[in-house]
Amino acid sequence: MSSYEAFDKLIECLRELPGVGQRSAERMALKILRTGGLLQRMGAALKNAEKTLTICSNCGSVTYIDRQPCPLCVDTGRDPGILCVVEQPDDIAMIEKSGSYNGRYHSLMGKISPMRGDGPDSLRINNLLNRVDSGKFTEVILALSTDVEGETTANYIAELLSSRKVKVSRLALGMPAGSGISYADPVTLSRAIKNRIREKE
Amino acid sequence: MSSYEAFDKLIECLRELPGVGQRSAERMALKILRTGGLLQRMGAALKNAEKTLTICSNCGSVTYIDRQPCPLCVDTGRDPGILCVVEQPDDIAMIEKSGSYNGRYHSLMGKISPMRGDGPDSLRINNLLNRVDSGKFTEVILALSTDVEGETTANYIAELLSSRKVKVSRLALGMPAGSGISYADPVTLSRAIKNRIREKE
Repeated sequence: MSSYEAFDKLIECLRELPGVGQRSAERMALKILRTGGLLQRMGAALKNAEKTLTICSNCGSVTYIDRQPCPLCVDTGRDPGILCVVEQPDDIAMIEKSGSYNGRYHSLMGKISPMRGDGPDSLRINNLLNRVDSGKFTEVILALSTDVEGETTANYIAELLSSRKVKVSRLALGMPAGSGISYADPVTLSRAIKNRIREKE
Repeated sequence: MSSYEAFDKLIECLRELPGVGQRSAERMALKILRTGGLLQRMGAALKNAEKTLTICSNCGSVTYIDRQPCPLCVDTGRDPGILCVVEQPDDIAMIEKSGSYNGRYHSLMGKISPMRGDGPDSLRINNLLNRVDSGKFTEVILALSTDVEGETTANYIAELLSSRKVKVSRLALGMPAGSGISYADPVTLSRAIKNRIREKE
């Protein structure tokens, strides 16, 4: 199919999306071409997004072009003293859905990953330090992945924050809700035991 | 993030792509928003595809708007007597890459799948019968998936073609190239043994 330049260009764009390889991009491009109206709807959705949306320069979340910083950053109903650091803006949506946090957010836009060539400089760590140095926050929660890369990133940031006058915490490590012991991997299990919650001494 | 209508609309479009669920669509939409220029490039690629490409009304492959039927359907260097029936247009690209076939193609745009509510009527089977009835073909190769749905579809079409004056064949079933016995599933292995190629009697 590589004789169709417009088709290849579309595939090339789709390949830039996360988790999309050459074969998936080809299938997506075909689906776009042959589903009546999808091409036009997608074009309109992109145009609409371009006209109305942007990324909050403060926390990295989605916001309206005319609302900078974003509603989450300026909402006076939220605790301005706690900052929750996440990897991606979509992590913010997940934490919001849990309804268990009411402070500010900061998205790093990734994690330190030597394998992919992503060093600390490619992350929004400087913005984070500037925000902490503004003196508004008393606690920083590092809500990063619990894989090696996420923990490396958390350790790196914790080190940078160690000299600053701010509490640093991380998410609890333990059993996920609704799961059984037989499904837990050894690392999770050993952390759940190590961090066990004592009910009665 | 559901408070941004333009964002939700974009996610909704992306979810129509094959293999894309809610979470993937959210991640894709964010990537589109925050990667400089990607939104514009994608919009341009869609616009370009809309202006220049379409689906061949004959075989179902990609073609230029001003080349209907597509180059594969009118190429006089190809054998006009063999018709290879595939599920999707991208299967055509795969077979072309193998360099082992030089006849015409027909894409069904799917397979019979009661689970997904796709019956024979949702496929391009009538077009196929019309093409066969035109009398141009001496052989129809059913190059469909070797899963239950693909085989159901092949059986269904083989039944329809049984009364017509045309040879019907299917792809060989056996071991994939570059693979070991220990990686083969029992069904593949039993077919590879049943269809074994005798070198010397």
